[in-house]
Amino acid sequence: MKKNILVGQSGGPTAVINASLYGVVVEGMEHLDEVEHVYGMVHGLEGFLKDDYLELSEDLTQKELELIKLTPAAYLGSCRYKLPGDLTSPVYPTVFEKLEALEIGYFFYIGGNDSMDTVSKLSLYADRIGSSIRFVGIPKTIDNDLMLTDHTPGYGSAAKYVASTVREISLDASVYNQPAVTIIELMGRNAGWLTAASVLARQHEGDNPLLIYLPESVFDFQAFSEDLADALRRQPNVVVCVSEGIADSSGRLICEYNDEAKLDSFGHKMLTGCGKVVENFVHNRFNIKVRSVEVNVSQRCSSLISSAADVEEAVLAGSFGVRAALEGATGKMVSFARTCQDPYTLQCSLVDVDQVCNQEKTFPAQWITGHGTDISPEFVDYVLPLIQGELKHPMKQGLPLYAFRRS
Amino acid sequence: MKKNILVGQSGGPTAVINASLYGVVVEGMEHLDEVEHVYGMVHGLEGFLKDDYLELSEDLTQKELELIKLTPAAYLGSCRYKLPGDLTSPVYPTVFEKLEALEIGYFFYIGGNDSMDTVSKLSLYADRIGSSIRFVGIPKTIDNDLMLTDHTPGYGSAAKYVASTVREISLDASVYNQPAVTIIELMGRNAGWLTAASVLARQHEGDNPLLIYLPESVFDFQAFSEDLADALRRQPNVVVCVSEGIADSSGRLICEYNDEAKLDSFGHKMLTGCGKVVENFVHNRFNIKVRSVEVNVSQRCSSLISSAADVEEAVLAGSFGVRAALEGATGKMVSFARTCQDPYTLQCSLVDVDQVCNQEKTFPAQWITGHGTDISPEFVDYVLPLIQGELKHPMKQGLPLYAFRRS
Repeated sequence: MKKNILVGQSGGPTAVINASLYGVVVEGMEHLDEVEHVYGMVHGLEGFLKDDYLELSEDLTQKELELIKLTPAAYLGSCRYKLPGDLTSPVYPTVFEKLEALEIGYFFYIGGNDSMDTVSKLSLYADRIGSSIRFVGIPKTIDNDLMLTDHTPGYGSAAKYVASTVREISLDASVYNQPAVTIIELMGRNAGWLTAASVLARQHEGDNPLLIYLPESVFDFQAFSEDLADALRRQPNVVVCVSEGIADSSGRLICEYNDEAKLDSFGHKMLTGCGKVVENFVHNRFNIKVRSVEVNVSQRCSSLISSAADVEEAVLAGSFGVRAALEGATGKMVSFARTCQDPYTLQCSLVDVDQVCNQEKTFPAQWITGHGTDISPEFVDYVLPLIQGELKHPMKQGLPLYAFRRS
Repeated sequence: MKKNILVGQSGGPTAVINASLYGVVVEGMEHLDEVEHVYGMVHGLEGFLKDDYLELSEDLTQKELELIKLTPAAYLGSCRYKLPGDLTSPVYPTVFEKLEALEIGYFFYIGGNDSMDTVSKLSLYADRIGSSIRFVGIPKTIDNDLMLTDHTPGYGSAAKYVASTVREISLDASVYNQPAVTIIELMGRNAGWLTAASVLARQHEGDNPLLIYLPESVFDFQAFSEDLADALRRQPNVVVCVSEGIADSSGRLICEYNDEAKLDSFGHKMLTGCGKVVENFVHNRFNIKVRSVEVNVSQRCSSLISSAADVEEAVLAGSFGVRAALEGATGKMVSFARTCQDPYTLQCSLVDVDQVCNQEKTFPAQWITGHGTDISPEFVDYVLPLIQGELKHPMKQGLPLYAFRRS
C-alpha cells in the first residue's frame, strides 16, 4: 500500500539546503509505486504541529523545482523547535496522529545537530509504539561540524564564498601604500572549519590572510600582538581572519571583552563581535590604520558563488535518504564517505542518528599550524574538492531569480 | 614626435576601476604612431613622485591584461594624495620635471572627486607654464556622486551586488515564523545611490526591504518607530536598509549616537555603524528579535556578480579618454550621456573637470517616496540598464583568479 513522504527543513539556512529538498522531492516522485505524495512541512516540525504543510509533488512545476534547487535559505521555512527528552510527553502522540492522518510512511528532516536530535527522538518513539513510519536525517550545515561524515552539504559553498570574499577583501586592503591591518570576522562559534577556508584566499607565497585564528586554539592578546608585529615587518598590509568564537585561555569569548561598556546614548547595550574587539586592540596597541569586516550571514545565504560539487552532493544526500528509507532505514542520517582523494570520489552511507545528534566535530588540532596562526596543506587537500565548479543561475533583469513560497 | 601615456588610479577601489585601466592601455597601444609607451603610476601621483611606476604596454601579456580587466580593487595601487591649492608650491615643478623626463604627453587619472581635483590643478599648472601635456580624468566611484555624468563606472556593479545581497539576506531573514527585524547597513556617507539600489531586491509586491533610508532625508527615530510598527503589522519579517550616512534633523550622524559609551574592557573606544545603533533602538523599543548586517567593503571590491554593462562602460571610458586626449583634450573628464532610455544607449562626451571636482551629486529628492522610506519606480528605470549582464570569470581550483602586481 502506498504511503506519503513528509520532508522538512530545520535550523539555520545554507546555500544548498533547498538542493537537498529538491533531491527528496524528485527521488520521491520516481517511486510512484510506493509513494503517493511528497508533503513539505512549513517551518519544520513546529509548523507541522499547527497543520502547516504543502503538497510538493503535484503543486510544483519542474521549472519551479529547478529554481528551488538553486535558491538559498530554506524554501519551506525553518524552525528551532526541540522535542522534549521525555518520550511520555503528549507532543509525541500528537505528532504521530498527524503523521498517520496524512498517511506518512517516510519522514525526512534536513538540518544539523538539533534536527538530528528530532529524528532520533521520533524514531525512538516510533519504535516504542510500534509505528512503521521511517525517520531519516539529511545533513545540512555550513559549519561542517556533524560527526560521522566526511563533510556536510552546505559547507562547500560557504567555504568557497569565504575564500573568494577574503581574497577580494585582501585585494581591497592592499591598494594603499601605508601600513594597515584588516580584521575579517568569519562564522564559527565552536568549530573553525569555515574560518580555516580563508587559507584558500592566498594566491601566492606570502599572500594574505597572514594570520588565521580558530576557536579550537586559545586566542592570547600578547601572542597575537607579537604575531602581528612580525607580519607587519614582512609587509605593510596585513589581513587577519578570526572565527566569531575565538576565546582566551580562560574560555572567555573575545567578543565579550566589550561587555562592560557597550552602551549607546540611549543607555542601551551595544553588542559587537570579536572582530571589533581585535580591531580596537590593534588600534590602541599599534596606533596603525585598522578596520574590521564582519562577513556575516552572506556566508550561509549567498548563492553568487555556490559550489557545483556541493549542490550536487546536497541533491544526492536527499535522494539517497529517500531510497534508504524506502528500503527500510529509520533512525539514520545520510553520511558522506570519501572513497578516493585523487580523483575525489564520494559514497553515501547511513549512520545511527543518535550517534550524531547533540555532538560537534571541531577542526582537527593537527591541521592548525604556526602555534595557532595558520592552517596546514592537509586541510587544503581536504577542502579543495568541496568547492569545485560553478552553476549558472537563472537571472531576471540582471539579478539572480530565487524561488519564494507564496503564503 | 611620439609621446608616452601615464595612467594612475586614485581613491577607493571599485569592481571595474581596472577595466578603465585596461581601456587606457589597450587604446594607447592602438595608436603606435603617436604613443610610444603606456606607463602606470604605482599608488597614484604619490607613488609617481617617488618614481614608482611601471611599463604597461610592453611588460604585460594580452592574457594578463584580460585578467586585470576583471580584477577588482586597484591593480596599480591607489592613494589619497591631494595637491596643494597654491600653484606656486614646489610640488608642481617637481611633477612636471618627472613628466618631461618620461616624455609624457598624455596623463590619465582614474578616480572620483579628489582625483578630478588633481587633474584640474595639473591642467591649470600646465596651462600656466605653457606645457603641452594633456590631462584627462576617467570617472570612477561606486557612490555615483560625480556631477555632469549620467552615472559613474563602478556604480552599476556595486548596485548589482547590493541588490543581489539584500535579496539573499531577505530570504535568509524570512525562514523563521517569528517576528524579526533585520537592519542592513549599506555604503553611502552623503549620497544614497547605493542604498537606493536595495529597492531592486524585491521580487514581488510587499517583498523586503520594506523600509529604505537614505542620507538625503532626515532620519527621525520616532517616525522610524511608527513606520516599523506599521511594517510589522503587514508581515513578521521586516528588512530595513539604511545608508551609513543617515543623520537626524540636527545633522547629527546616527552612527554617532553611541559616541558617549563606546569603550571596550581595555577602556578603549568602540566604533560601530548606524546599523548597530538602529538595531539597538529596535531591540529596546520593540523588544523583538533584531539583528544588523553591515554589508561593508564587498560592495566596492566584489567581482562575484559584477555588471557586464558596467565593465564594458568602464573600458569605454578609458579608451574614449585616450582618443580625446590624442585629439587635443585637456582639463576634461570623460562623461556619460544617456542618449536613449529604451533601448538603453550611451554616448561618451567631455566635461570641464573643474566643474566636477570637489562636488557631490546626491540622490534626487523626487525619487524618494513614502515620506523618506521608499524609492520611486523612476529610479528603477534609471538603474536597471546599469546592472545588466554577467561575465564569466577565469577560475582556478574553484576560486576566481585575480591579477596582482608583483613588487
